[in-house]
Amino acid sequence: MDSQLVQDLQDVAHILRIHSIQMTDVTGTGHPTSCSSIAEIISVLFFHAMKYSVKYPLHPSGDRFILSKGHAAPILYAAWAEAGLFDKKKLLTLRLIDSDLEGHPTPRLNFIDVATGSLGQGIGVAVGMAYDALKIAKDSYRVYCVLGDGECAEGSVWESLAFASFYNLHNFVAIVDINELGQSDYTCLRGDLDTYRKRWEAFGFQALVVDGHNVQELLSAFQSLRAQESKPGVILAHTKKGAFFPGIEGSPKWHGKALGSSSKSVIDHLLSLIKNRSIDPKSLLREDQFSAPTINTRLPQLSEPPQYDMGKEVATRFAAGCALKKLGDASNRIIVCDADVKNSTFTDMFKASFPARFIDCYIAEQVLVGVATGLSRRTGHIVFLSTFAAFLTRAFDQFRMAAISYSTFKVIGTHCGVSIGEDGGSQMGLEDLAMFRSLPNSVVLYPSDAVSAERAVELAAGLPCLVYVRTSRPSMRTIYPKGEVFEVGKSKICVKSPSDQILVIGGGVTLIEALDAAESLRSSNIHVRVMDIFSVKPIDKASIVENATECGNLILTVEDHYLEGGIGEAVSSCLSPFGMFVVHKVFVDSLPRSGKPRELLDMFDLSSAKIAQKIKDIFENKEKQ
Amino acid sequence: MDSQLVQDLQDVAHILRIHSIQMTDVTGTGHPTSCSSIAEIISVLFFHAMKYSVKYPLHPSGDRFILSKGHAAPILYAAWAEAGLFDKKKLLTLRLIDSDLEGHPTPRLNFIDVATGSLGQGIGVAVGMAYDALKIAKDSYRVYCVLGDGECAEGSVWESLAFASFYNLHNFVAIVDINELGQSDYTCLRGDLDTYRKRWEAFGFQALVVDGHNVQELLSAFQSLRAQESKPGVILAHTKKGAFFPGIEGSPKWHGKALGSSSKSVIDHLLSLIKNRSIDPKSLLREDQFSAPTINTRLPQLSEPPQYDMGKEVATRFAAGCALKKLGDASNRIIVCDADVKNSTFTDMFKASFPARFIDCYIAEQVLVGVATGLSRRTGHIVFLSTFAAFLTRAFDQFRMAAISYSTFKVIGTHCGVSIGEDGGSQMGLEDLAMFRSLPNSVVLYPSDAVSAERAVELAAGLPCLVYVRTSRPSMRTIYPKGEVFEVGKSKICVKSPSDQILVIGGGVTLIEALDAAESLRSSNIHVRVMDIFSVKPIDKASIVENATECGNLILTVEDHYLEGGIGEAVSSCLSPFGMFVVHKVFVDSLPRSGKPRELLDMFDLSSAKIAQKIKDIFENKEKQ
Repeated sequence: MDSQLVQDLQDVAHILRIHSIQMTDVTGTGHPTSCSSIAEIISVLFFHAMKYSVKYPLHPSGDRFILSKGHAAPILYAAWAEAGLFDKKKLLTLRLIDSDLEGHPTPRLNFIDVATGSLGQGIGVAVGMAYDALKIAKDSYRVYCVLGDGECAEGSVWESLAFASFYNLHNFVAIVDINELGQSDYTCLRGDLDTYRKRWEAFGFQALVVDGHNVQELLSAFQSLRAQESKPGVILAHTKKGAFFPGIEGSPKWHGKALGSSSKSVIDHLLSLIKNRSIDPKSLLREDQFSAPTINTRLPQLSEPPQYDMGKEVATRFAAGCALKKLGDASNRIIVCDADVKNSTFTDMFKASFPARFIDCYIAEQVLVGVATGLSRRTGHIVFLSTFAAFLTRAFDQFRMAAISYSTFKVIGTHCGVSIGEDGGSQMGLEDLAMFRSLPNSVVLYPSDAVSAERAVELAAGLPCLVYVRTSRPSMRTIYPKGEVFEVGKSKICVKSPSDQILVIGGGVTLIEALDAAESLRSSNIHVRVMDIFSVKPIDKASIVENATECGNLILTVEDHYLEGGIGEAVSSCLSPFGMFVVHKVFVDSLPRSGKPRELLDMFDLSSAKIAQKIKDIFENKEKQ
Repeated sequence: MDSQLVQDLQDVAHILRIHSIQMTDVTGTGHPTSCSSIAEIISVLFFHAMKYSVKYPLHPSGDRFILSKGHAAPILYAAWAEAGLFDKKKLLTLRLIDSDLEGHPTPRLNFIDVATGSLGQGIGVAVGMAYDALKIAKDSYRVYCVLGDGECAEGSVWESLAFASFYNLHNFVAIVDINELGQSDYTCLRGDLDTYRKRWEAFGFQALVVDGHNVQELLSAFQSLRAQESKPGVILAHTKKGAFFPGIEGSPKWHGKALGSSSKSVIDHLLSLIKNRSIDPKSLLREDQFSAPTINTRLPQLSEPPQYDMGKEVATRFAAGCALKKLGDASNRIIVCDADVKNSTFTDMFKASFPARFIDCYIAEQVLVGVATGLSRRTGHIVFLSTFAAFLTRAFDQFRMAAISYSTFKVIGTHCGVSIGEDGGSQMGLEDLAMFRSLPNSVVLYPSDAVSAERAVELAAGLPCLVYVRTSRPSMRTIYPKGEVFEVGKSKICVKSPSDQILVIGGGVTLIEALDAAESLRSSNIHVRVMDIFSVKPIDKASIVENATECGNLILTVEDHYLEGGIGEAVSSCLSPFGMFVVHKVFVDSLPRSGKPRELLDMFDLSSAKIAQKIKDIFENKEKQ
């Protein structure tokens, strides 16, 4: 081992510690002790082990670094500044409102792949990227992920490990910062390195236990893991929180606290430890040469238009599966992930044609979303994930963080609403619209027949944001001609006459039921205009206003979803500043149960007969508010 | 080993298989092959190993059984019918709309503790109950939980194992049905029993590998685990999906399919395997004697009223922590769970006084909610859980299932909105109202000062449903006198005059800002009525209508939350059938960032100055819709 290198990297570690202290003192907030425990790890990674470009931090062939313990952001920022990416003076803008050096990393910074800070999530993203390098991009880049020990209590971590070992991602290296301290207490396992090792080994990892403050041991460990190509690796680094901070090191009282009045003496001590005060960390870097990548940016379209005849009974989940296959035919940018329900979501059609671009994440929705998030940050990929709408709730926190990461993957949720039938409430997605609508910058599409379902998937592929496509289990008749054109933010008027008295807005099964209700009411001389909402977010406010106005300002929304956050609230919300539209709402108003789909639609007032009755009630002023 | 007993239990297993086939044939839906792989496990548990009462299935001292793989519900129902709880004929109502024998178990049935069917969740509930028996109720009951092997991919499972071993729950026994098949494929580990064993052992379990169709091995395993008191136990049962179904056993093509035309020949085969066709499974039962429990049903109140002087600056999260402590003083029914943030949620005050009734679940929000769900189903307990509002999204699926379980635990979310400041977007709860509003039968309270925060927690304790209390990080001035009375479903009018021109509705920080805005506008001769929403769900529709009417039908909502599913949509939604109220909305309209709380309030138009400007804009008709 090169003893000068060891000494230099140790010096750099202390320099990074000093930055972390000074940065968190700016606002008096942040986590300097959580930075200090990984100072040697960061120093060794950024100034020796990793192959990357300071000029092009997100280069497709550069090693990736994910800081899963996002609260240690200051030391990560300090490493990039010392590597020469930006002026070190900028470090002292940490957490200020006009600085992108936020409390936790976000991709507002040009060297951050994904936002972290909700613990246990970074590793899911990281294994997705490692999968890309090894199996899709077939590139030599490696993926490094630093986790906290407290963070390893999150189940999402273990989903990620199972994924990494099942797919044999030997280009993935996790580093666990075992400083024995969580936020409010010691961790469960404290310094029980043996149990850590057993757990990671049982999950298929090559595990190396090191002193996390020993540069030489870290260098050897990274080298040793690079040399093997059999398993993913983990470095279990025993560390001290606040390492080398006299009076603070190892104390449980110093989580998330700036050092303030203690800073000067600690910094003086750290300076005294630095052997070569004139060291320039940049001098340790070799600038890896990366050629400019060729990036496929062509937006894929369906290889052929929808082929369903009007009236044909098809499930929208099936049509969505067909669309994925057609997109795959048209473009190798498409990647599809599923969670062991590919024979229900019909992503198995994509898998059959493009096995190398299909990833089964098994029954583990958190890593499903993590992998999609990671893949979608790699150049050129257009990533879809699919499972039952209900089970997507398992990954709400991952979706929340994906939104903060400006992620662009697409989600297809199947089996929405009570119309799934006999399986019962636990399998019914009844809050999925509420969840996906709440994500900043999301688009939510809700196709009602096979033609619109294929087009919704195609539209999703072209959008530079997180998109949710809601699909249904039962077969429903095709209501649009093959050539019908759909747009994001645009609804469709399906039935219309000059004498319409009410605008009924539906989606999915409730649109079909609403159409039948409108038909049945014609004989009673009640004229109903029917709108297919299609784009739940952004909502087609202009058309709703125009059509509602033509229908005497009277609206009825009907949805196979709970009230809160659903279509009725979306419509009411967009009309609320007008103060002139009457919006009645039908929705799933209590806990559902098992039963036949039609019986359930009727039980929850979503069937054509119940919709027709509701409209009659409105007109007979029976409606109680 | 009693060979007659072994034979009898094997016969019972086949009888349960036959029921499962016949039951799923009624609607032609369901999972008979998933039932068959656990037939011997169920037989041994229900007709020998478990101590329970058929008369009182939920008796506080009876062993608990949680079917985490809820899709095997038919065989569970069949076991209870054969045990004599209800008429076997009723089994043939499976999945019919008027039957409580649903596709997946729910507590509509008097022998089901909690709903299962979203995989990986039952075990979290089960370890919560095991904790109760061992540490709180100090009762001798044991907890058994059957999981599928595919299900073990869920991270929530590993959170539960870490919890069980950390708290040394030796009264807990997991049984993993390793039939090697998920829904759409073989599982990752297939029949790699050695890796299963290593994983469970590494997570602190006593692991026994058995042939899951060998009654004798199962009997020995349950006996051996009962005899030890050092660790939680797991039986890793190697099984076959569709075991003893000729032509179906072990096939990957038979997940979730009724046998239909194959049923007769399979049933004939099973009948041929039964040695004693006249066996009555009930004869194997001893009716365990349980005395009628004494149940504390007294609703606790704060041991003393809130003690904050008007104007005093206090964070609502702190007041909520104080309230928990006061409730604990008043009643031993209160249990508090936290996720390693007790020094931020201030549940550490409760812990200091009542360590035996405080449970730290560490950084694992899924098991946090699972444990609360389990505990809240045990007699007499009133269970609170607390963590950052943002991180509650990690457990949305658990909350969803808790709602289907009619759970009654209470959730305190802290650190809502941009007002947390420098930590940035990943730590801000901005979709928590959307999430908790969407749960059926939930109550959502949002206190705006310390007095109302204490009362919100007290109200929550008394409600027989799932309650969410939203609290804030910054200190805010106390605006209510100590004796103020709060009610669920009731808002408060804080500022009012006969000449009010607009009703501003706020909550938390935005209420305080709205009050300041109203004050500042008085000099401009603009009269603003200010409402504290307090009860977001149920919403105080009557008061909103009455006050808005008195304010010229003009409303402005201001909230530290995203638009979708928040207060503005809740207000718009409840007024939508009137068609006469104009509702303007201010909310967090884009991704937030790090900054000082006041800077962020201003950036997102939530500060008093921005609210005042917004009101002026409305009156000057500058407002674009």
